[in-house]
Amino acid sequence: MTLNEYLAHQQERVDRALRQWVPEETAQPESIHKAMRYSLFAGGKRIRPILCMAAADAVSDSPVGIESAACTLELIHTYSLIHDDLPALDNDDLRRGRPTCHKVFGEAIAILAGDALLTLAFQVLSQIECLPERKGRLIEELATAAGTVGGMIGGQVSDLEGEGKPPEAALLESIHRAKTGALLRASLRMGAIYAGASPDQFSALSCYGEHVGLAFQIVDDLLDIEQSSEALGKTAGKDAQQNKITFPAVYGLERSRQMAEQELLSAHLALRPIGDRAGRLRELADLIVYRKA
Amino acid sequence: MTLNEYLAHQQERVDRALRQWVPEETAQPESIHKAMRYSLFAGGKRIRPILCMAAADAVSDSPVGIESAACTLELIHTYSLIHDDLPALDNDDLRRGRPTCHKVFGEAIAILAGDALLTLAFQVLSQIECLPERKGRLIEELATAAGTVGGMIGGQVSDLEGEGKPPEAALLESIHRAKTGALLRASLRMGAIYAGASPDQFSALSCYGEHVGLAFQIVDDLLDIEQSSEALGKTAGKDAQQNKITFPAVYGLERSRQMAEQELLSAHLALRPIGDRAGRLRELADLIVYRKA
Repeated sequence: MTLNEYLAHQQERVDRALRQWVPEETAQPESIHKAMRYSLFAGGKRIRPILCMAAADAVSDSPVGIESAACTLELIHTYSLIHDDLPALDNDDLRRGRPTCHKVFGEAIAILAGDALLTLAFQVLSQIECLPERKGRLIEELATAAGTVGGMIGGQVSDLEGEGKPPEAALLESIHRAKTGALLRASLRMGAIYAGASPDQFSALSCYGEHVGLAFQIVDDLLDIEQSSEALGKTAGKDAQQNKITFPAVYGLERSRQMAEQELLSAHLALRPIGDRAGRLRELADLIVYRKA
Repeated sequence: MTLNEYLAHQQERVDRALRQWVPEETAQPESIHKAMRYSLFAGGKRIRPILCMAAADAVSDSPVGIESAACTLELIHTYSLIHDDLPALDNDDLRRGRPTCHKVFGEAIAILAGDALLTLAFQVLSQIECLPERKGRLIEELATAAGTVGGMIGGQVSDLEGEGKPPEAALLESIHRAKTGALLRASLRMGAIYAGASPDQFSALSCYGEHVGLAFQIVDDLLDIEQSSEALGKTAGKDAQQNKITFPAVYGLERSRQMAEQELLSAHLALRPIGDRAGRLRELADLIVYRKA
């Protein structure tokens, strides 16, 4: 299978799991389920669930049911996009090439749809078929990565409060490790936990996730400058407009690009102990760094 | 111990657990943790955690660590209050006798503080000491009760969308069962699960929870009319002002009061199989129906 075929296949597995777990649009009350599905099925790349499944494959042979655990990462990611786009936060009108959730359904339903996706992520994890001890670890991993201390919400707060502050390297890294890095790293760790990784495999995949997470955010910052809104499916150029602390703002474009490639190299090194089974993870790291949107 | 002493003692246990699990105000980023604690420690009655602990006590002798599981109900309840009070939803300035979270910390932090409390509830449940199989059931119970299908978010959506609609009995009951009933019922069920209830004990406590949940909401609707904002610690008279579908709107004051007492009677009947151990649950049901705030 080529990489593109592999990505299409994995996206379909994730989408099937999401369609199964998210209530139908006809379930009462309809508006909330329509809003949840509108934001979920908007052509996301499913990069977090795919990393999760690839990590599990690097540990054991096609672990059954992994896509249900993996799709919870997309539920969390999508909830965070809906809430980030609200007028009180980043106030954005465009996401994944379409009007944002609150533009279509109103602010009240958008807030509640975000809450609902967040809640559903844990409901799904509580209901998947897997060893109860692993289930507890998966939930702990996801909740911690999504939380306030070193996690996604904490990063989002630091990012908001950093607007207009002097762009300092230490603040930048702490924001990005939390805001996007924590959930990306959790994607790998959850795949490892689900598949029953040994401590060595777990820490190799976790280390890979940390580097890929940072690379992902550096490239995101670069794309916000270099690409059009049309290519990105979201409003481009917003970071500079909002005086966000970004890698290009702190280090400039060229140095930021080098840093992304350095993180890529470190990600590859982290995979050494995994050996041949990590082939897809290597390709995914390259894809994350060299993507155009 | 008198009932009042018992309530004060249980509130203190819940507050101690909350203080232990919620990050300190000095944890970075400070603003989000200050906002979380501001809304959590505002003199809430802790009725859900107390019901949870009383249910556990009705099943086994002082189950160790129950207050950690119980306090997650208060995390969920408080997140829902913060989000409900937002300008896009009920737009309220007063809660638990103080300015609402978004009035003090701004809308962005209030949205994220709600998200954070919701996330933390599941993090806490993933980290408590209890049999892994029970942990999974606790998380499933809480997530389902807080969710969109028959749960709290679904009820909130129906409530918002019901504003101005003709006050019909079926719609009223479905809103209230979901909006407040589901989480109250889950309080009892979680206590039962934690303490290892038999199927018979579980369904007795669940049935009690259902009746107490409905009684609670009927009385809430009555108090909104009969009491002052000062007594309630939140803006009184808002239901009528917003044309909400309430019990008094559908049945009138007197009939609503009778219905609350009918639910109370049913709650007492449900406890019969539990016997003497359900003493506190009986007192709590009476308290819920005859409270003045």
